[in-house]
Amino acid sequence: MLGMARLSHIGPDGRARMVDVQAKPVTHRFAVAAAEIVVQPATLRAIRAGRTRKGNVVETARIAGIGAAKQTSALIPLCHPLALTNVAVDISFRPPRTVDIRARAEAMDRTGVEMEALTAAAVAALTVYDMCKALDREIEIRRLRLLEKAGGKSGHFMRVEKRKRK
Amino acid sequence: MLGMARLSHIGPDGRARMVDVQAKPVTHRFAVAAAEIVVQPATLRAIRAGRTRKGNVVETARIAGIGAAKQTSALIPLCHPLALTNVAVDISFRPPRTVDIRARAEAMDRTGVEMEALTAAAVAALTVYDMCKALDREIEIRRLRLLEKAGGKSGHFMRVEKRKRK
Amino acid sequence: MLGMARLSHIGPDGRARMVDVQAKPVTHRFAVAAAEIVVQPATLRAIRAGRTRKGNVVETARIAGIGAAKQTSALIPLCHPLALTNVAVDISFRPPRTVDIRARAEAMDRTGVEMEALTAAAVAALTVYDMCKALDREIEIRRLRLLEKAGGKSGHFMRVEKRKRK
Amino acid sequence: MLGMARLSHIGPDGRARMVDVQAKPVTHRFAVAAAEIVVQPATLRAIRAGRTRKGNVVETARIAGIGAAKQTSALIPLCHPLALTNVAVDISFRPPRTVDIRARAEAMDRTGVEMEALTAAAVAALTVYDMCKALDREIEIRRLRLLEKAGGKSGHFMRVEKRKRK
Amino acid sequence: MLGMARLSHIGPDGRARMVDVQAKPVTHRFAVAAAEIVVQPATLRAIRAGRTRKGNVVETARIAGIGAAKQTSALIPLCHPLALTNVAVDISFRPPRTVDIRARAEAMDRTGVEMEALTAAAVAALTVYDMCKALDREIEIRRLRLLEKAGGKSGHFMRVEKRKRK
Amino acid sequence: MLGMARLSHIGPDGRARMVDVQAKPVTHRFAVAAAEIVVQPATLRAIRAGRTRKGNVVETARIAGIGAAKQTSALIPLCHPLALTNVAVDISFRPPRTVDIRARAEAMDRTGVEMEALTAAAVAALTVYDMCKALDREIEIRRLRLLEKAGGKSGHFMRVEKRKRK
Repeated sequence: MLGMARLSHIGPDGRARMVDVQAKPVTHRFAVAAAEIVVQPATLRAIRAGRTRKGNVVETARIAGIGAAKQTSALIPLCHPLALTNVAVDISFRPPRTVDIRARAEAMDRTGVEMEALTAAAVAALTVYDMCKALDREIEIRRLRLLEKAGGKSGHFMRVEKRKRK
Repeated sequence: MLGMARLSHIGPDGRARMVDVQAKPVTHRFAVAAAEIVVQPATLRAIRAGRTRKGNVVETARIAGIGAAKQTSALIPLCHPLALTNVAVDISFRPPRTVDIRARAEAMDRTGVEMEALTAAAVAALTVYDMCKALDREIEIRRLRLLEKAGGKSGHFMRVEKRKRK
Repeated sequence: MLGMARLSHIGPDGRARMVDVQAKPVTHRFAVAAAEIVVQPATLRAIRAGRTRKGNVVETARIAGIGAAKQTSALIPLCHPLALTNVAVDISFRPPRTVDIRARAEAMDRTGVEMEALTAAAVAALTVYDMCKALDREIEIRRLRLLEKAGGKSGHFMRVEKRKRK
Repeated sequence: MLGMARLSHIGPDGRARMVDVQAKPVTHRFAVAAAEIVVQPATLRAIRAGRTRKGNVVETARIAGIGAAKQTSALIPLCHPLALTNVAVDISFRPPRTVDIRARAEAMDRTGVEMEALTAAAVAALTVYDMCKALDREIEIRRLRLLEKAGGKSGHFMRVEKRKRK
Repeated sequence: MLGMARLSHIGPDGRARMVDVQAKPVTHRFAVAAAEIVVQPATLRAIRAGRTRKGNVVETARIAGIGAAKQTSALIPLCHPLALTNVAVDISFRPPRTVDIRARAEAMDRTGVEMEALTAAAVAALTVYDMCKALDREIEIRRLRLLEKAGGKSGHFMRVEKRKRK
Repeated sequence: MLGMARLSHIGPDGRARMVDVQAKPVTHRFAVAAAEIVVQPATLRAIRAGRTRKGNVVETARIAGIGAAKQTSALIPLCHPLALTNVAVDISFRPPRTVDIRARAEAMDRTGVEMEALTAAAVAALTVYDMCKALDREIEIRRLRLLEKAGGKSGHFMRVEKRKRK
């Protein structure tokens, strides 16, 4: 019964705390997250032209996402600090209006890295927003979500996606 | 013609750089951003029960959002550091499946605070995700967007929203 | 003879440096620290009312303490960065004037976590101060100290406390 | 009636938020905080010898305190970021057992700097602790408090101290 | 007589502290710093090929430099935090072996921004190093220096450079 | 052929990303970096006098370097976070004009620590600059370089130095 489900960061006495992961084994963990940025068609053309000619929006967003993954435990109050072994952020285009962001995080640790992947995707998307906001104030970041996760005792998770038209 | 539109962070030579705001006047700036978190109905009930009894998920997310607003210029590569005079994050519920986040940022500065409001909303949403992920791995953060902005030379912006059913 | 005692962060040539912990074994480390905040009786009632109704002072202080534990190596110059596996902060009341803070830190590492526990307790206490300072400028933080520590070669330490009336 | 007193960071709806300081005037603000560190007499002699010969404990603690003052808004959830114009930390000795820390913070801003002064004093004291903990695990940090504050509409505050023997 | 010269961060009592800038006027400040990175000719060709095709080394270093400028007061113990209005980093090539970095920082503040410009140049150079170190371990960063500075009471400074062959 | 050499942070598709170190063994890593600061003879005398009497410039720079080593992964975009087991910074003088900085970093990890050593040396040097800039605006930081590195599969590296007169 879900009313009984344990919110993992709430202690037995109902107060927020980190989950104690000391007893968990160190294993290879990875997670993949994604987000979409919906812009006006003219904005997408401007980003892509930037990308083709100079790569700026895309490279800046990628580097911002990688940097944010490394700051995850400083941003999300109950996340554990962990030593990421890899972070990668990919950015692609789905014309006429969508920028797709995909972020992957990996570590050898006692705890999962989904928050690192999600934070990378979120900050990469916010960076695209920041670099285009003078052009387009209606930009919307959509569908920030976990696509895949592996390495913990809960097994391999893959999100079943029914691609929705936006 | 939009192909000519200036991406504001790209210099005349096509390289990413901060926008020089030195010549802009110091004015009162504010911005409001929002996000939605879509969860399973049982997860929403668990969060609300937590909120009613202890306030943990909601308070933790609120504090994370405020903290993140203060870190915006460290996260978004081309954002200016600025002295926020106010940050507020509100979290409410739209059963059966939606948590609504609204973040407001204010400053007396030469540059807008929309990225601070958006970063607050994003990190508050990620914190809700983090605290509920053991219950529900299908959580999705949706519609992270700017609702309102004022104080710069581009005038008062209010997003026209046609509320979509999710 | 204590005049000869080695201050652990001073190198053989008398210059401050980190202690080299490379040769120490990785073991489970934990530490518990405590602090007291002495306030006016009316302030304590206000905090408690807040706690009962909304939990704000207490929850904000708790989250601040957990966050600070994760920043210990950035605050204390010669502390090692380490991957905490758990941090917990508890806050309780001893009327008419005392707020008690207790912080626990844990890690699997080569070095102790007492500074993480003490930093968590200190920042939680400062946060209580910050949230009450408009009410009471005479607040004093007292008796920030290590209560217990285990996991290193120096064995299990428990402070002998003769509880003093405050 | 104090039960009605407003905790300054609690909004009208009872939720933690920053105090909106936008309407406050920019004035010169300063604050002085203090803390005591109580150690064994032999530890005090070791610190002083270190100070006389190399200055390490004292200089390291001083620099840590200054650095922490600059991080205050990242540590204390509801503190405003502000541009400090000055921070100074002084450390002196009261044999046989007491190290005295005094920290001063100044800014031209809309909000007070007492949290910056208190954070500087706390982190300087924790740094002394860290550098001496191999010698003395009974070290206690005591009486972290605001001594003086000026520049806001609440006027000049000076704490009345009746020096207690420790 | 220079033996009497005042080291600006040393107080009257000889202890390190921030310079109190409260009484200084707010003026427009700028500073330009430069550094050279000397690599093997083959490494320079590889970087340039990367730049021409994808811009990665150059863009990553530029963004790292801008980000570091914003962190200057957290890195350099006695620097004041300040609200930069502009940071720009330019990277160019002087074959067969030299990468040139030039960084500009600007602010409306009470204190100069030379440390921000120098920190940007240093971290941009370290980032080039990091991205090329698998190719070339003999890379050397040279001649990190201030080229120009204006806005304070000491007037406009321009370094007289006699370009040396390296 | 070096035109084919792999820049280690560039992925197969030419985009900047972290190197995936998950498959590398955990070994003891160390690296030593160095830098020189060239000042006017009178400045060197002032620093040394400061050092003899109070140690301020030297101690402040040392602590800044150690602190920066711990922030390396937050400064250099594609560096991995890692748990340093040791950092040491030494500062010496070569009259009439040279301050020598040497920094050592160590870790038990999957990846090298040369960026940590180089970052420590760079920030220690920038701190010397900051503390002396009121005396001497012509200060130049020179020859920031890796001296030695060990622990990875590429074997033990020692730079062959032919000491150049400056």
